[in-house]
Amino acid sequence: MPRILIVNPNTSRAMTDGIAETATAIAASDTEVDVIRPNRGPKSLESFYEYHLAAVAVLEAIEDRADEYDGVVLACYGDPGLYPLKEALDVPVVGVAEASMATATLLGHQFSILVALERAVPMMENLARWYGLDDRLASVEPTGLSVLDLETDEERTLSELAEVGQRALDRGAEVLVLGCSGMSGYENQLTDRVDVPVIDPVADAVTTLEGLLAQGLTQSKAGLWSSPPAKEMRGELPGDGFG
Amino acid sequence: MPRILIVNPNTSRAMTDGIAETATAIAASDTEVDVIRPNRGPKSLESFYEYHLAAVAVLEAIEDRADEYDGVVLACYGDPGLYPLKEALDVPVVGVAEASMATATLLGHQFSILVALERAVPMMENLARWYGLDDRLASVEPTGLSVLDLETDEERTLSELAEVGQRALDRGAEVLVLGCSGMSGYENQLTDRVDVPVIDPVADAVTTLEGLLAQGLTQSKAGLWSSPPAKEMRGELPGDGFG
Amino acid sequence: MPRILIVNPNTSRAMTDGIAETATAIAASDTEVDVIRPNRGPKSLESFYEYHLAAVAVLEAIEDRADEYDGVVLACYGDPGLYPLKEALDVPVVGVAEASMATATLLGHQFSILVALERAVPMMENLARWYGLDDRLASVEPTGLSVLDLETDEERTLSELAEVGQRALDRGAEVLVLGCSGMSGYENQLTDRVDVPVIDPVADAVTTLEGLLAQGLTQSKAGLWSSPPAKEMRGELPGDGFG
Amino acid sequence: MPRILIVNPNTSRAMTDGIAETATAIAASDTEVDVIRPNRGPKSLESFYEYHLAAVAVLEAIEDRADEYDGVVLACYGDPGLYPLKEALDVPVVGVAEASMATATLLGHQFSILVALERAVPMMENLARWYGLDDRLASVEPTGLSVLDLETDEERTLSELAEVGQRALDRGAEVLVLGCSGMSGYENQLTDRVDVPVIDPVADAVTTLEGLLAQGLTQSKAGLWSSPPAKEMRGELPGDGFG
Amino acid sequence: MPRILIVNPNTSRAMTDGIAETATAIAASDTEVDVIRPNRGPKSLESFYEYHLAAVAVLEAIEDRADEYDGVVLACYGDPGLYPLKEALDVPVVGVAEASMATATLLGHQFSILVALERAVPMMENLARWYGLDDRLASVEPTGLSVLDLETDEERTLSELAEVGQRALDRGAEVLVLGCSGMSGYENQLTDRVDVPVIDPVADAVTTLEGLLAQGLTQSKAGLWSSPPAKEMRGELPGDGFG
Amino acid sequence: MPRILIVNPNTSRAMTDGIAETATAIAASDTEVDVIRPNRGPKSLESFYEYHLAAVAVLEAIEDRADEYDGVVLACYGDPGLYPLKEALDVPVVGVAEASMATATLLGHQFSILVALERAVPMMENLARWYGLDDRLASVEPTGLSVLDLETDEERTLSELAEVGQRALDRGAEVLVLGCSGMSGYENQLTDRVDVPVIDPVADAVTTLEGLLAQGLTQSKAGLWSSPPAKEMRGELPGDGFG
Repeated sequence: MPRILIVNPNTSRAMTDGIAETATAIAASDTEVDVIRPNRGPKSLESFYEYHLAAVAVLEAIEDRADEYDGVVLACYGDPGLYPLKEALDVPVVGVAEASMATATLLGHQFSILVALERAVPMMENLARWYGLDDRLASVEPTGLSVLDLETDEERTLSELAEVGQRALDRGAEVLVLGCSGMSGYENQLTDRVDVPVIDPVADAVTTLEGLLAQGLTQSKAGLWSSPPAKEMRGELPGDGFG
Repeated sequence: MPRILIVNPNTSRAMTDGIAETATAIAASDTEVDVIRPNRGPKSLESFYEYHLAAVAVLEAIEDRADEYDGVVLACYGDPGLYPLKEALDVPVVGVAEASMATATLLGHQFSILVALERAVPMMENLARWYGLDDRLASVEPTGLSVLDLETDEERTLSELAEVGQRALDRGAEVLVLGCSGMSGYENQLTDRVDVPVIDPVADAVTTLEGLLAQGLTQSKAGLWSSPPAKEMRGELPGDGFG
Repeated sequence: MPRILIVNPNTSRAMTDGIAETATAIAASDTEVDVIRPNRGPKSLESFYEYHLAAVAVLEAIEDRADEYDGVVLACYGDPGLYPLKEALDVPVVGVAEASMATATLLGHQFSILVALERAVPMMENLARWYGLDDRLASVEPTGLSVLDLETDEERTLSELAEVGQRALDRGAEVLVLGCSGMSGYENQLTDRVDVPVIDPVADAVTTLEGLLAQGLTQSKAGLWSSPPAKEMRGELPGDGFG
Repeated sequence: MPRILIVNPNTSRAMTDGIAETATAIAASDTEVDVIRPNRGPKSLESFYEYHLAAVAVLEAIEDRADEYDGVVLACYGDPGLYPLKEALDVPVVGVAEASMATATLLGHQFSILVALERAVPMMENLARWYGLDDRLASVEPTGLSVLDLETDEERTLSELAEVGQRALDRGAEVLVLGCSGMSGYENQLTDRVDVPVIDPVADAVTTLEGLLAQGLTQSKAGLWSSPPAKEMRGELPGDGFG
Repeated sequence: MPRILIVNPNTSRAMTDGIAETATAIAASDTEVDVIRPNRGPKSLESFYEYHLAAVAVLEAIEDRADEYDGVVLACYGDPGLYPLKEALDVPVVGVAEASMATATLLGHQFSILVALERAVPMMENLARWYGLDDRLASVEPTGLSVLDLETDEERTLSELAEVGQRALDRGAEVLVLGCSGMSGYENQLTDRVDVPVIDPVADAVTTLEGLLAQGLTQSKAGLWSSPPAKEMRGELPGDGFG
Repeated sequence: MPRILIVNPNTSRAMTDGIAETATAIAASDTEVDVIRPNRGPKSLESFYEYHLAAVAVLEAIEDRADEYDGVVLACYGDPGLYPLKEALDVPVVGVAEASMATATLLGHQFSILVALERAVPMMENLARWYGLDDRLASVEPTGLSVLDLETDEERTLSELAEVGQRALDRGAEVLVLGCSGMSGYENQLTDRVDVPVIDPVADAVTTLEGLLAQGLTQSKAGLWSSPPAKEMRGELPGDGFG
């Protein structure tokens, strides 16, 4: 019976609850799922600056419990602090962005990522190139919906998502990825509207991790994500318990 | 309780049995797995020519039963005839090559594919570029092992795989993919020798398909893999029951 | 005196006749040209599914006569079943898509392909990437013209082609490729309207093949298109006479 | 009866004669071929510096006679001064490098270019990237053979070419391109040794040009190679008769 | 005290004066700056044809004085004749296009180049790919402004630049590069309007060259830009004093 | 008189002193240079894990003094935490890796990066792709020299660097970049041995920053590096004073 940890790297309780709902709904019946958020850090993550603050807060949050789990999902689009986790842990760590892009390659020629804000557009284009998957990326589409909008006005949200999704289709996308936690839960309704597969990255990362665990696979320690060497520290920092 | 069909596109009974063994071992306890091979066609697939013969034989083999399954795995590295299946069926179809490459991106910076024969090298390089994943491919490494070798001399096979795997590591690979059905079953022993993750594509495609089924996802019908239009045929051909 | 075979992989007599007209008009006076279609298979080819059916039908159609020719042109945009033919035959085999893309690189910085249907857009984008020529592809432009339109209303067809061609120019194309057999014959009139070179792929493939024959060149048998190995078959399949 | 002009951009009489021999041997019986060299400039071209000197000398050499021809071949690997010619003339201009790379894509998955000197290696890698064909380039292989070697010791030359060609094959090439005029004439013997197609770029460019002429195609004037605008000059320069 | 030479490759006195103004304004107080133009050649450079004429005129213009300088800036967007200069000289030679693109990578995810005429669009796209920087290029935007416009109507020019700059931003640019000498001097006002960094390539190349000189760096002579070999010439050509 | 801050993100005093020596030696006489290290964090940075710890320590170290400077250099190859700084500050921030790669494009066709340890190889390959400069990267070469070696045995260090540098040249590099602070100071001696330009990234970043300051340029705030939005924090974290 696999035990997996889902880490929401921001400190929003509402988003953490939403992630927990999605994750427990999709997980296999014999998978045990824990969902946590850091004790400190930004309420939401929209910049590399916030990504880095959150990354150390996540390290801090898991350093005492990492060995209780068989695998970890990092649950924020953009995969903030993913590589440190892949290095620090021996169990498999899956980012929701990397998982959803990998899955999207199986479902269509090109995919688009729907994001909340204009500013996320270059960040996600950048991420896709970093992952070497930019040939399969049709576009990143900002919805202009704030997190508040996403939570409060379901009908308007769905209309906006469908409109933006259609724009993605016009740019060649055959698959849509919900690149913002707040959009979670709209995937089925959006599929109904635009008639293409819509990936909820949290759900996808959970099943991807379950698949890795079934196969006994974890990230390679032979190169990019080698375990951090033991290292002399000056003073202390949150999350410095690895290495 | 999902019911999935694994299709070995060659007609070798031994390989089909091997695939069945791998697939049933990895599948979740509530997944029902059927494994078939076509009634006719080549015993093994090593050329585009054979790929195309096998593709129609596969279409023929499944046309009467496709609607009994929730998803399909095409189980031959090279994914011969994958796109016709993705078009023809509404349930998700996963190729073992595409699945293993997508998974490999989560496990290391670059991966290598181990193949039997020299001639498969350009075929698999070609495939990785077709899939837009060539930035993540370190190399394709021929083992020079015939299928017979693979089946009969375990120790020698393992030595050769380890030697070839090391060559891949020297070229930057952090993950190895077993690009030939006959290598199935060696993944754990090979991992012991080379100390990097080794993916068995059949196992990986099964868990990938289970993940898609859990999410209710299937390939997009909005572009590259749209359903084939109804079409006037002249005469008959094996596998012409779709479209 | 070279003798070349043009194979239309679909079974439409009208298209075969159109191809024959184009091919005989362009061929050198000392080239002997035969044009055939398979005995069975789809009337037109618009999906990978149909591509594969047609591929075996083409193999079947030529297996008894391939050695009578000095070279072969496969005459359907998308080059369905091209690689099996390149493997199976020792004489040069040229696909109309690969030939026209290679020629387009000599005529302009970027080219666009005009196709009949929306669904061909990702297929041709995919093909250009497969061929490693996507850097030179400006766009694939669907005309929305059915084969029937193309055959019956010349003035309307030309207007539509010119409008779509202009859209391609706006996207950076300097050369247009007629990516659908039904468009054959419009190249000069379209050039008059849009003032850029327009390539008829059938004509281009014929002259390309003649050039290869003059040089005594054929596809390499040292890698991707090595001759298919002799192989044990289970039962029989159309086109299985090679290998 | 098409009339074509072959321009050797260096001033070596021996190389010009060699090019003439190759060109007249390959040209169709009804093609009239003239071969010229500039009145001034370097005896051989091995640097961008020499390329530019030669380019204006070529312009000067053809400005009074360009309108007598139906098409032009620029016959030096590296295509020095090709783009000015494509702009300046309305008839098709084909470079031997661009033609041979385009043709090579039809004959194998990847090709290698054999060159005389080490220093040509980055120049040709650069050229392939400029042409957007680097995905198809396996390697550029220097032979270390001087022009004198190439002319005087046939057996040694062939041995060296075969050795270098084998190195290219080991790096994935399936086709070899003779990237130096002095190698012309060895293509058949080299094919006998290494068993892959070997392209003589001069021969290939001639047949390519003939193919364009048969189709009535010429380079696009709508973008990269638009005719040079009429322009005020200060003083005079060799070759300034266009524009 | 470094002494640098700025070469305007066209023969326009007005542009040369403008370049001198920009260069002397930006140069460090201890840098001595000379600005020259060739004695002959086109007044402006808008085609590869003109680029090549100008290249030899530039070589001619500097052959007697190159050894008086510590470094050279070639001051025309498109970098016409840059590689010959990099080969011919041992001191560092910097092109304004290559420098500005390198700098742009430090200032934003993607940059756009503003050019005068439509015809420059493919030329600059081509240049960016040649330099291997096309992943960072958002677009090339033609302003439609003639050189005369640029010089006479400041307010209109600024409005047009701002409009075109906004179009670039809409296409993902975060940085603008003034790809035409006539635009020099508008960078600050344009920044005020569009609120992104605007690079004047002449100014940027001067500071880049100063940086190289401070470090004692010059272009490598080990590969692409090796010194031209001594070479036998037939007759004489302008600029043939090197090699 | 510009005032610049150099931040060594690791806490090694010796390395900080070395960086200070390099930076003050290269800076213009009217540039004021301060060099700092964080109060806490790893002594050296060899993993993404350490990169993230160092990033927040750097943010913490500069949050009270950032507004005293006209520009910032982040002085650790790998550019750890560069993007947060580019977002957080309005003055230009230059990473030594991005600067050296940009400069290397001006000095040779392809460059190689020399690093200390094997494990840095995929990290730097990854970085070059992230920056979109992988087309210009020949290789990353590990020296196997520890920091201690680099500091204690000059002659051996130089021999090793020359040997590794030669390997890079054999792989096509024309320029070498010293991708490890401990190598600083060897650039001239290494150039003497291998006869190609060798870039010291700290020196290069200082002159690059001076160039940006002379031009009044800073990173764009319109996209990837927009200022972090004001954001509600839960608790406190080191470096959380921005945004």
